[in-house]
Formats: sequence, C-alpha cells, structure tokens
Amino acid sequence: MEDASRRADTPRTDDFETGLGAGDGLELRVWLRLLTCSTLIEHGVRHGLHRSFETTLPRFDVLAQLQRAGKPLSMGELSRRLMVTNGNITGLVDRLKNEGLVDRRRSDGDRRVQMVSLEPAGAELFERMAADNRRWVTEMMAGLSREEKESLFALLGRLKSAVLDAGADDGETG
Amino acid sequence: MEDASRRADTPRTDDFETGLGAGDGLELRVWLRLLTCSTLIEHGVRHGLHRSFETTLPRFDVLAQLQRAGKPLSMGELSRRLMVTNGNITGLVDRLKNEGLVDRRRSDGDRRVQMVSLEPAGAELFERMAADNRRWVTEMMAGLSREEKESLFALLGRLKSAVLDAGADDGETG
Repeated sequence: MEDASRRADTPRTDDFETGLGAGDGLELRVWLRLLTCSTLIEHGVRHGLHRSFETTLPRFDVLAQLQRAGKPLSMGELSRRLMVTNGNITGLVDRLKNEGLVDRRRSDGDRRVQMVSLEPAGAELFERMAADNRRWVTEMMAGLSREEKESLFALLGRLKSAVLDAGADDGETG
Repeated sequence: MEDASRRADTPRTDDFETGLGAGDGLELRVWLRLLTCSTLIEHGVRHGLHRSFETTLPRFDVLAQLQRAGKPLSMGELSRRLMVTNGNITGLVDRLKNEGLVDRRRSDGDRRVQMVSLEPAGAELFERMAADNRRWVTEMMAGLSREEKESLFALLGRLKSAVLDAGADDGETG
C-alpha cells in the first residue's frame, strides 16, 4: 500500500526541489530549480566528455577559456574565468602541459606571473570536443522554443546582474 | 593603450560567458549563463555557511534533504535527491553521525539498506542555517521583480522538463 501511494506521488526524478514545502519562498524555489537544471545539464556534458573523449569537465573548461581568450592567460585570469581559486587549477594545468595540450611559462613582463597558452594539439582537441558539446547542449534544450530560450537568456542576465549587485553591496566584490 | 581599451570592454567580472563569440549558439549561451548564475549564488551560500556556521554546503544539503523528507531516507534516496553518487555521501554522513547531527542504522525491513535520520541537534542546527540561507538567497535576488522571479521559475521548469525528456530519449534515464 505504502509503495503504491508513494509511486503515484513520485516525480520522474528526485532532485534539489524534492520536498519543498508551501512555506518556502519563491527565491528559494528559483534557486533550487536553477541548481537542479545546472546539475542536470552538467551531468549530460560530463557524461558525453567521458564517453566520447575519456576526459573531464574541468579539463575541457580550461581549454575552452584559452581558446575563447585567443591569447595566453595568466593563472589568475584563468581562475577568475573558471570561477575557482588559483590552487584548484595548478595541478590541472600541469597535467595538460605534460600531455602537450597547453604550455605554461613565466611572463616576459613580470617574472612572478605564469602565462598559460593553448598548444596546437590542445586547440585541435578542443575544436572536436566543442562541436560535440554544442550538439549535446542543443539537444538537451530541444524541447524549448526559440522564444523560450531567448526569454530565459534575458532573465538569467537580469539574475546575474542582481546577484553581482547584491555582492557589491556587501563589499564582497568590486 | 591596450590596457585602456581592454578596461572599457571588460565586464564587471570574468565568468563562463567571457569570450563567447558571435558564432556561438543561443543554447550554449543559455547554458553558460545558467552555470554562471548557479556558481555565483552557490558562492554566496558557501560563503555565508562558512562565515556564520563554519560549515560546508554538502553538509547543509544533507540536513536539508532529511528535514524536507520528514522521515528517514535510505542512502540511495539521499544520493538521488542530492544528485550525487552513493560513495560521495558515505563519509559525509559518517561525520555528521559522529557529531550527533544524524543517525544511520540498518533498515528493519531490509538489512542491506542503511537508513539515515535527523537527530534533534541536527534539526535544530538546520533550522538556524535554513533561516539564514533563505535570507541570503532572497537578498541575492532582491534586484528582480516578483514577476521576473515567477517567469524565471516557470522557464526553468520548462528547461528541467526538456532536459529530462532529452535524457529519456537517449535511454540514459527513466
């Protein structure tokens, strides 16, 4: 009996929204749904990178930022764009360097600064991974209309500004 | 000269969207903006939990899921709701148990299943953390109107369904 009634109530998947009560505010609901969507898409991308390239998302992200920059980035710039602390990417960059995908060398202008650049093999690998990544993300959003995607993009822009402004008020950023 | 022109073009922060080109599709833009928003809010929550409670987000998430469930959860159910693999939460639950915040014991019905429940001390701590968490998330979204938050919530619901449907088509879920 208990099993049957539970099955009827069970959503297709358990996630961060499961068990929210009527008393929980709209902001918390938005945040937990955002986190659920972000985690679902990230799982899809991680799964694809592992299956097709036997690689991980952080490795892909480093190559992506270097390719988008179109120039060498300091370790500090790379960390900021990946929204992680410096220490987290040092080992990652070392391993990519050992595989000949990136290079790391001291800046000519400031010997204290380490500059990371994309090697031709890294650029070539990234292009293949990026093409598949675009396809996976596009497929995951295939159920949304162009208009829905544009509205979502605009509202997420508003959210990003709001969160950055709130952080600035706290004196935590800027 | 280069510095000045770069400053004028530079957004307030570097993030996953930095360096996207005109050729990058709307879906990829939505995904990277979603990831940026999710990471920014997560940073805010992690920062608050560390500053106010000297605790971490995964610990808070475990207590949150147990409180929302209102009943003991198996390790498998807990993992699913947290969208992580079983192995990742075993050590976490052990540490929370050692601090008297949760209990873990074998299910009476099936001795192979470990059930995790919230202890009174864990429930009390969670209530204090949850009140602050609601406040932080509400403050981070203070720049959005009620209507914007409702639209965002609805569109994220559409996105969640789309991603789950795409996964089901692949035979990866359901």
